Amino acid sequence: MEQSVEILLVEDNPDDIELTLNALRSYNLANNVQVLRDGAEALDYMFGHGVYDGRDVNERPKVILLDLKLPKVDGLGVLRKIKQDARTQLIPVVILTSSKEEQDIVESYQLGVNSYICKPVDFEQFIGAIHQIGYYWLLLNQTQ
Amino acid sequence: MEQSVEILLVEDNPDDIELTLNALRSYNLANNVQVLRDGAEALDYMFGHGVYDGRDVNERPKVILLDLKLPKVDGLGVLRKIKQDARTQLIPVVILTSSKEEQDIVESYQLGVNSYICKPVDFEQFIGAIHQIGYYWLLLNQTQ
Repeated sequence: MEQSVEILLVEDNPDDIELTLNALRSYNLANNVQVLRDGAEALDYMFGHGVYDGRDVNERPKVILLDLKLPKVDGLGVLRKIKQDARTQLIPVVILTSSKEEQDIVESYQLGVNSYICKPVDFEQFIGAIHQIGYYWLLLNQTQ
Repeated sequence: MEQSVEILLVEDNPDDIELTLNALRSYNLANNVQVLRDGAEALDYMFGHGVYDGRDVNERPKVILLDLKLPKVDGLGVLRKIKQDARTQLIPVVILTSSKEEQDIVESYQLGVNSYICKPVDFEQFIGAIHQIGYYWLLLNQTQ
C-alpha cells in the first residue's frame, strides 16, 4: 500500500532539495516526502489537476515547505490558493526562503502562512533548522 | 529600559504555568514571558484595555501560547479576536491544550491558528515539547 505523503517540499533549487532531503533522512523524518519543483506543479498536486489528475486531494500532507522564488507560480501565489480553498486551507504551510524582506514576511502572514523561516546560509545551521522544522510539524503539531 | 515581552502565555492552570516557565527557564528561553490567567485579561493586554490601558499595542510578542479552556473568554474566542484585528493578526498563535478533539483542531485552524499542540501528559515529554516550541518560535521563526 502506498504510504501517504507527510512532507510536501516545493523547491526548485537542486542543492537546497538535496540538503533538505539529506537533513530529513539523517533524522529519520524523510520517509514520505514529495518534492515539487515549481508553483504550478504544486497547485496541480494539491488540487489533483494536470499530471496529478485523479489524485485523492483529501490525502493531505502534515506540512508544506514552500519556497518563495519559484518558476511559473511564485510561493505567495501558491500560498494564496492553498489558504483560500476549504479543501487545503487547514494544511500547515511553512515558508522556507532566503528572503528576509519585511514585505515578504508581512504578506505571507496576511495570506495565512503558519510559519516563516529564513534558510540559514551556514551548512550546519541549515541542517539543524530542517531537523527542528521536521520534528516540530511531523511529531509535535496536530492537524486534522 | 523595560524589555519587550517575547512570549505571552495565556493559561489558568497554576501547575501548567509553573511547569512551562520552568521548562523555558532551563533552556534560557524565559527572559521575557508575560503570563495572563484568563481570556478577558489576554484581550485587555493585546488591545491595551482595562488594567493594560495605555500599553503600546504595537509592542508584539514573538508568539502567544494559548490554552483553550480559559475563564471569562475561552481560547477560541481569544484566537478569533486576535486573528480578526489587523493590529494583532500577524502574531503567531500556538494553541497549547489538553484537548485532542477534532472539532477544536479544525476550528482553531479555520480561525487562523499557526500551530496546535496537545500538552503531553508525561512530565519529561511536556518539558521537551515546551523546549521545542520555545526554540522554534523564538529563534527559528521570523515575524514582522
